[in-house]
Amino acid sequence: MVVSKSWTMVRHFVGLPKLEDFKLIEKELPPLKDGEVLLESEFWSVDPYMRPYSKLALKEGDVMMGSQVARVVESKNPAFAIGDYYVARSGWTTNFISDGKELRAIPSSWPGSLPKSLALGAVGMPGITAYAGLQEICAPKPGEVFLVNSAAGAVGTIVGQIAKIKGCKVVGSAGSDQKVAYLKEIGFDEAFNYKTVSSLDEALKEASSEGYDCYFENVGGKFADAALQQMKNFGRIAVCGCVSTYNDSIPQKGPYIQPLILFKQLRMEGFLVTQYENKPIYKEAQKQLLDWILEGKVKYHEHITNGFENMPAGFIGMLNGENTGKAIIKA
Amino acid sequence: MVVSKSWTMVRHFVGLPKLEDFKLIEKELPPLKDGEVLLESEFWSVDPYMRPYSKLALKEGDVMMGSQVARVVESKNPAFAIGDYYVARSGWTTNFISDGKELRAIPSSWPGSLPKSLALGAVGMPGITAYAGLQEICAPKPGEVFLVNSAAGAVGTIVGQIAKIKGCKVVGSAGSDQKVAYLKEIGFDEAFNYKTVSSLDEALKEASSEGYDCYFENVGGKFADAALQQMKNFGRIAVCGCVSTYNDSIPQKGPYIQPLILFKQLRMEGFLVTQYENKPIYKEAQKQLLDWILEGKVKYHEHITNGFENMPAGFIGMLNGENTGKAIIKA
Repeated sequence: MVVSKSWTMVRHFVGLPKLEDFKLIEKELPPLKDGEVLLESEFWSVDPYMRPYSKLALKEGDVMMGSQVARVVESKNPAFAIGDYYVARSGWTTNFISDGKELRAIPSSWPGSLPKSLALGAVGMPGITAYAGLQEICAPKPGEVFLVNSAAGAVGTIVGQIAKIKGCKVVGSAGSDQKVAYLKEIGFDEAFNYKTVSSLDEALKEASSEGYDCYFENVGGKFADAALQQMKNFGRIAVCGCVSTYNDSIPQKGPYIQPLILFKQLRMEGFLVTQYENKPIYKEAQKQLLDWILEGKVKYHEHITNGFENMPAGFIGMLNGENTGKAIIKA
Repeated sequence: MVVSKSWTMVRHFVGLPKLEDFKLIEKELPPLKDGEVLLESEFWSVDPYMRPYSKLALKEGDVMMGSQVARVVESKNPAFAIGDYYVARSGWTTNFISDGKELRAIPSSWPGSLPKSLALGAVGMPGITAYAGLQEICAPKPGEVFLVNSAAGAVGTIVGQIAKIKGCKVVGSAGSDQKVAYLKEIGFDEAFNYKTVSSLDEALKEASSEGYDCYFENVGGKFADAALQQMKNFGRIAVCGCVSTYNDSIPQKGPYIQPLILFKQLRMEGFLVTQYENKPIYKEAQKQLLDWILEGKVKYHEHITNGFENMPAGFIGMLNGENTGKAIIKA
């Protein structure tokens, strides 16, 4: 008999989530039926989207949403062998039963040199998000200037490196000097600490006096107000996240952006990676990212929190910007 | 010797332009040189863009910007015959000399049943703006729900009728009951007076309980705040104007729209008709609009102010929403 542990959301978050908003529960899993498999989670992903989507998709008391890398430990389905690895979307939970339909295989050809947790990061949802938003919305041309904020995060680090591969001048902003140093290390042309610059406008102008052709938006709010002012005519903006607004109880206000969108003839498009899941670009992105990582053209960094019991703390830390690269919880 | 009259902008506008912001000046035109033509304006266009663009493009004391339909009255250029009509961009002026390069011919095949002022309206800049923004940015599919505001204006009336031709359900908002009645008359499925509804949100929901696929934006500001809430996932927004913000001395603020853009995966794109001038769609739009008008599929309405001396009043009236359809000044 297997006992599964799960983290539930006790109450909807107000402002930054707190440890007491979560509760650990245990339950016994029933014996497998024919066609089912039992999996055990090894790595979990914590991501910014969980903050706004918990509000939209969860009731109080529900298990928190999210993905994991999990290993088959028992199988009554001939398509799933014990020891095989899958990416699942089974929430913050240690053990779970699946009919296999929602599982995405981590191929047996997975390079031994790479941790399987990359399937939750640079080669998983955040990496594919970076690849698809950059390609499909920004569509940067060589020589263009590319801006990304939250640049040291799971998505931003990959976006900036792909934009470099595409021949752009890449500018990133992040929230600590250590992160800025990391961005320079992985090839960003310019990077600044948005918390310590005296003016965002000046920092953006200094990083690129000619302005910006492409802008990969992870932050929104006041950063966006400043960045939109620095866009060139016909600039493209991929809205991937608005992390500066997720903890607001009362929506923040800012100057209307439509006049800038109009007079600069900008294109702004919001996207969720789910829209690409059944399109060719999804597999293309996975393969390309894996190749680039193996060739050393894209570097990755993981911020590991050890222990399932520390998952709420790891999530809150990620929202607080403690991570460089992908925030991962390890069993 | 010909005396030309022009309206200059004495000082940059603060808030709604006032009559005393304009001054009528006269000057003698020199004799024509070889290659030049002398034209006399018969119709002038007054358009919302003049309010924000005067700030960007004019110095105090400059002649106001704008287009006219003008007739050749003297020619030292064999390509231009006396009596021929052209659309020019020579500003608020009665007579002017041109080398012909910037003139756009009104063909001799122009239907006698149609006023040449349409070359400034439904078959000119506003009509082409409507056609290009709708086709290139909204790209509506049959059965989709299409929203346009400032719907009784020069652009809005044409947008709505094209969206009907494309098989959409069309909803328009305007600022008087008379305008609303006109919108119904020309085929809008739903129309409301935004000044008298108790809530924009409710009015938008009532007009389309399923929400909106396409949104042709002429207004911005609070209208946009409400409309964006009612967009369907993957909606397209063509930002053609932001008339509610043009008279602001201090920019208005509103809730950040990026979270909506993100979670609904919306595409918002600003455009000026100038970007289409040298593309095939420009001529295609002119021809198609003329055909539709002759076939009775697109109806037009002009709001004529008589007398060049009344041009500032006509401009201010248009900004105040006095016009239904295209605001034209007639010599």
